[in-house]
Formats: sequence, C-alpha cells, structure tokens
Amino acid sequence: MIDKTVKIGIAGLGTVGQGVFSIIREQTELLQARSGTKIEVVAVSARHKDKNRDISFDNITWYDDARHLAQDKEVDVVVELIGGDSGIAYDVCELALHKGKHVVTANKALIAKHGTHFASLAEQHQVVFAYEAAVAGGIPIIKTIKEGLAGNNITKISGIMNGTCNYILTKMQETGQDFAMILAEAQQLGYAEADPTFDVDGIDTAHKLTILSALAFGSPVNFDDVHIEGIRHITIQDIRYAKELGYKIKLLGVCSVSDDGIEQAVYPAMIPETHPIASVDGVNNAVFIESDALGKLTLSGPGAGRLPTASAVIADIVDIATNRRTFTFGKPVSQLVKRTNRCMRNHRCEYYIRLQVEDKAGVLAGITDILGKEDISMEAVIQKPAKGTQAVDIVGITHLTKEQNMMQAIEKLAHIGGVLSYPTMIRIE
Amino acid sequence: MIDKTVKIGIAGLGTVGQGVFSIIREQTELLQARSGTKIEVVAVSARHKDKNRDISFDNITWYDDARHLAQDKEVDVVVELIGGDSGIAYDVCELALHKGKHVVTANKALIAKHGTHFASLAEQHQVVFAYEAAVAGGIPIIKTIKEGLAGNNITKISGIMNGTCNYILTKMQETGQDFAMILAEAQQLGYAEADPTFDVDGIDTAHKLTILSALAFGSPVNFDDVHIEGIRHITIQDIRYAKELGYKIKLLGVCSVSDDGIEQAVYPAMIPETHPIASVDGVNNAVFIESDALGKLTLSGPGAGRLPTASAVIADIVDIATNRRTFTFGKPVSQLVKRTNRCMRNHRCEYYIRLQVEDKAGVLAGITDILGKEDISMEAVIQKPAKGTQAVDIVGITHLTKEQNMMQAIEKLAHIGGVLSYPTMIRIE
Repeated sequence: MIDKTVKIGIAGLGTVGQGVFSIIREQTELLQARSGTKIEVVAVSARHKDKNRDISFDNITWYDDARHLAQDKEVDVVVELIGGDSGIAYDVCELALHKGKHVVTANKALIAKHGTHFASLAEQHQVVFAYEAAVAGGIPIIKTIKEGLAGNNITKISGIMNGTCNYILTKMQETGQDFAMILAEAQQLGYAEADPTFDVDGIDTAHKLTILSALAFGSPVNFDDVHIEGIRHITIQDIRYAKELGYKIKLLGVCSVSDDGIEQAVYPAMIPETHPIASVDGVNNAVFIESDALGKLTLSGPGAGRLPTASAVIADIVDIATNRRTFTFGKPVSQLVKRTNRCMRNHRCEYYIRLQVEDKAGVLAGITDILGKEDISMEAVIQKPAKGTQAVDIVGITHLTKEQNMMQAIEKLAHIGGVLSYPTMIRIE
Repeated sequence: MIDKTVKIGIAGLGTVGQGVFSIIREQTELLQARSGTKIEVVAVSARHKDKNRDISFDNITWYDDARHLAQDKEVDVVVELIGGDSGIAYDVCELALHKGKHVVTANKALIAKHGTHFASLAEQHQVVFAYEAAVAGGIPIIKTIKEGLAGNNITKISGIMNGTCNYILTKMQETGQDFAMILAEAQQLGYAEADPTFDVDGIDTAHKLTILSALAFGSPVNFDDVHIEGIRHITIQDIRYAKELGYKIKLLGVCSVSDDGIEQAVYPAMIPETHPIASVDGVNNAVFIESDALGKLTLSGPGAGRLPTASAVIADIVDIATNRRTFTFGKPVSQLVKRTNRCMRNHRCEYYIRLQVEDKAGVLAGITDILGKEDISMEAVIQKPAKGTQAVDIVGITHLTKEQNMMQAIEKLAHIGGVLSYPTMIRIE
C-alpha cells in the first residue's frame, strides 16, 4: 500500500461537501487504517466564504473560484460537489483531469450527459473519474456492478432511485392526500426542491439510470434515448385502486438488454404488494440487478442525505488513496459499444388503465370494442362511481400487451363519446 | 492496469470449482475488458481425475495432490475450493501464500478458525488472501464492508446466511410439515447434506458471522466466542403461533459492538412479517448492515449455488488481476484489536415463550408468579388446547427483558408442577 498523504480539494460546501469534510476530519485514524494512507483536506471552494458552516478552515486554502482549486498543485483529488451538467462543475472536472488529478463527483447530470468524455480524459491522463455518490446515495451500487459482478453479464437493472418521488408516493398512500398537497409538504420539510421538476418529472432518475445502463451493458452514456415519465399525473384515485388490486405505485428506472437493443425507461409502475420493491418506502432507494451468473441481487438503503452521500464519496477517495483502479464505465472507452435503442413502442407488459366515463348504456361496449380491436384482453375490471361526480370510474388490468397497441387504444378511447377525461395508463412491473 | 496473463490454479472441482472454470473459459473477453488482463486456468486438482465433468482439461496441468498445485511455479493465483478447516485445504492455502501466490477461497470454516493467521501470512508475502465467496454466496458483502463502507463505523450486522435453514423454515411455514419431514425432503433435493449438522445446528452461519464480525469491528476472528443455537428445536407449533402473532421465524447471525464489547450470536429469531428480513425466503440470503454515516444498508440475493458462488470467486480473481488490494480484514493485522466478548446473559430483547401445561387450576398462577419474580412482564398471552393432547399451550411475548432473567425463569418454569415439557424460548428481533 502507498505510504504518503493524499490531498483532497473539495469544490462545493453544501450539505454533502460538509459531510465529506467532517468524515475526513473525524475519521482520520479509521481511513488511515483502511487505506494505509493519510487522507487530508488541503483546499476548499464555495460561493460564499462567510456563510456559517460550523467548520473551521484553518490551514486550508480557500478558493472563491472552484476552477482555481481544480488547478492547485497541492491537490491530488478534486471532489466536485457543485452540481449541474455544465458551467463551473463541467470546468472543474475538465481542468482537474487535464492537470492529472483524480476526480470524485456526485454529479449525475454531468455524467449522464458527458460521462464518456470524462472517461476518455481520465484514461488519457491515467487518473480516476469516480462517481459512487451519483447513483442511489450511499448504496455502493457502482462498485457492486463494476467489481462485485465483474464475472457477470447483466441483463436488467431496475430501481427506485429518487427519494423525493418515493417519499411523495409513500405519503400519498399513507395519508390519502393528493400529489399537490404532499409535494407542498415535502418542500416545507426540505425533501423536495422549490423547483421540483428534476425529481417529480423523472429527470433525476433518468440521469441515474443512464449511468447504470452504460455500466451494465458496456455502452457510452446515452441520456437522450431514455423514455421519461414522471409522477405528476398519478392521482389519489390511482393509488387507491392500486391498493384495492394488491399493488403499490413506485417511480422506477428500468434498463434491459436483448438481441434487439437496449431499453432505458423511467415511469411510475404498479408493483405487487408482496414484491420486495413494494416495501421500499419513504426516502429510501433500492436497486435490483439481474445477471447470468449471480441471478437476482438487491441493494437497498438511504438514497440521499448528508452522511449517506458523503459515505459514497469517501469510499471513492479511499479507493483512490489505496490505488484501487477501475475503468470509468467498467471497460476502456474504446471498448464501449453503442447499441440500438429499443423503442418503448415494443415494450410488453400488463397495464393498469383508468377511465372516467358517463354512467349510461353503451359506453362500456364502446370501450371493449376498441380494446378488442387492438388485441387487448382484460384480466380484471372494476367499475365504481367516481367520487364527487355523476360519472363512473372504469379501472382495468390487461393481460400481457404490446405498448404500441396500448397507446393506440388510449388515443381512441380518449375521443369516443361518454369518456370524460384522458385515460390514465400505468405499467405493471 | 497490468498488461499480462494472470494464471489460475483451481484446487477442488466440485460444483463451485467447475463453475469458476467455466466462467473463466466462457467469459474470456468480458474478464479481459474489465480487468485489462488475460485470465487463464493453467492447473487444476481434484481427488478423482476420471470423474465425468463435461469439461476438457487439455493444456491444463492436472495434480492429484492439491499441495503440489499450490507450489506450481506457473500459478499466480490459487483458488482453494476443497473445504474444511484443516487438512489439505489448510495446507494448500499456507503453501501458496508461502510461495508468494495469491489465494482465493470460499472456505468459511478455515477463515473463521485461522483467518488471522492467513491474513498475517498474506501481509508478510505481500499477496492477497480473498474470500468473497465464503459469506452469503454471490452477494458482494465482503467488498461492500471493506470498500463500499470504508468511511463508516459499523455498529451491527445481522443476516440470513444459511440457505438450507432458510429453505427448511420457509417450507415448514408453507406446508405445515414438521422439521424432520422437511429436512428429509431437502436432503433428497440436494438442499441439505446427508449430515446436516453444520447447517441446521447453526455452525455454518457462525463461521460466516465470525468473518463479518472481524471485518466490521476490526478484530481478529473469534469463532470460539460465538453463541450458537440451531433450528432443530423449532416445532411446527412455534411456526404457527409465530404466524398468529404476526411473525416469521428465521435463523439469524447477529453481531454488534458497544462500549462493553462485541456480541456474536446465531439463533432462530421471530421477525415481524412486515420487516424486509421476513420476505427473504427459500435458499436466498440477506445481510443488514448498520453504520454511522450510511445508516441501514441491505443486500440480498442467492446465498449458494454453482454460478452465484463462482461469481464471487471470479470477482476476487478480477480484483487481483487488476491489482486492486485491500487488507484481508480491512486493516493491517497489527491494527486488529481483540475486544471483550459480551455475554449473551446481558442480551436484551423481547422473548416468545411457549409452555405445554396441564389444563388445571393454579398452573397459570404459578407461571405468572415466577415471571413476576424475574421481573418479566408480558405484552401478549395466548392460551389454547395443545393439539392431540389433554394439555394446553400457553404462548406469550414478553416486554423488553434481560436474557439472564429469562433463562432463570425458564429453568424454574421447567420444574414446577403442571408444566409438561421444557419451555421453548425464541428471541424477537
């Protein structure tokens, strides 16, 4: 093992940055025992130096501009915790790699968009570009895929990877309150951002899925081809009907590979209550991996938060300090193979469908006629008065159906007489 | 990354050995892409060369005596899959390390007994002694603790780590048949050994727990201080009452650290049906880790089997090929600290207790008197006719109780008038 000091520069002193700083400072002995190396923070950078952080930065170089920290000759490892897929975060990572420094980041947006570029730079300069904290917070999912499953061909990964969405869906289920109310409450508690778009519209999950998909299937990151649906359209009615049918609704990221390419998709899905995914509640995350040798592996734990995320950053730092190297995406960039994107139209699953219709003769016949023409047969149908209206809800679960047929049916159903609002469709996993 | 061929010698060609051999042969390209190195089997050893194995050993050196393989100059990494805590397995590991070869093993008994010795030898010769496959089959639990949680102080690990016991308990629950019948069936199906002692008496779980405990708390392996109970005494009545009370019975290995030392124990425990552990059924394993930074992390998956176990062996080989090193128990041997063993007498939990008693006046009063004197109060009590007898079952769940009091109470209860058999006690987790 190496017998020297590894010098860390932290760019970004938000909650995670402060967590990383305090673990390095408070666990000096533990980290030294495990890595055989002294790990020390020598430089930090943030926008506002005066902010009260309960941390003393004595003997540590302060940079107002993180780009200068990224080029500090003293720094061996730059920890980028600024965030965003462009601007300063991008510059910091690029400058650091060009200067031959290792980079550790939690920035999923940056990797989902530019991961292959940074992987090339890291290879070129023979340094590490590590990002354990970018996916599923503290859960060591990147290491598990790259190293723990090194002898496996992975066929599918699915997961709950956004704590905000999982918190909202869990709370909707527990309290019976609707999306808007729970979101407002989550914002007050700090579980959701003032602008919740990235979380509730599935973009954050898509960033993480892009990374896992590249790693699992040995492809360059390909964010643009992810099919993304969020949870804004999930109503409390859907949550209730799901429960009545024995399901819970969760926002999933799912990627899989087959002969005709890779499918990458983010969507709310109905999960049988008895399935382990269904018991992952609140801000927890879980990732399920299917591979040829190992079979099915599940990891679950805290998907966000100051110390869990810092724990993942520290794991990357200790790997670097101990000189444990992996290729950024598990293989050299030259061996990453771009694969065909499998269109969601070809997806096959069972579907939940909910229609609000006028309570009059002939409407149900019209619906079954359309479904029949699209070759869709039903496994279960519930018809109930729609609360607070003169209408009725028709809720059904289909047998295995091709998504293209489902989409065509929904489009037609939305426009026949007696159907009062655009039909809701949720995939069943 | 290294640019050479890493040469493997496999000692032991049972199911796992054959699995390792076939993955190395069939996944040559994948392993080379991930490690940057060619990985090749150059030597094998087993007791019977003539056995039909569906594998061609052309161009591979055959050894009748694995001790000779361990000293073959061509071999870089010796994979020990013979098993047993002494004899050939011990010799093979020792000879290989002395010759400066890396060792990969799945041998939990050997590590639980002699792990610290082999860790010292590995350090002395600057080679790796790796054992991912020794605990929880294919689940990458060793890597997760050593590397993924490098910045964490672990406070507790609990897990279902024996597939045979979990299969038997799951089947008892599903079929209502008793231990002996399910065991016989498991033996026929190959899920249990002809001599099931190591599995059903908790010894195999204790071996694995010893390893996790050493890793988690930075101590030398200490198998002798593990408190071990198996599952032979669990009756179908207990399974039924557990269900009635909302619990499942699982064989757990549990280790935890506190100011007064380490507790290491293996025992059947009652788990609330809603807890994630309760849904780990059949031959699956699961490990739960509690630590200061990350919080609670769960890993679950296949705990045994040809390819899952081989997957873990391969992960160790790829780490070695890629020159990724860790200390055998996460820290240098010189820094492992022997800690006080906390006696089970000081354990505190809620307890399930079942007594078969004569159906006559005064018996219940005698029981409550004894419990009261030992400061044990009850949270729930069920009294029912005991099937097929004139007696009644009294089943109760205590409030939080110190184990010493519980043991004293049971000893007294066993000897008062009207109590017909030795009371059954199961800890509630």
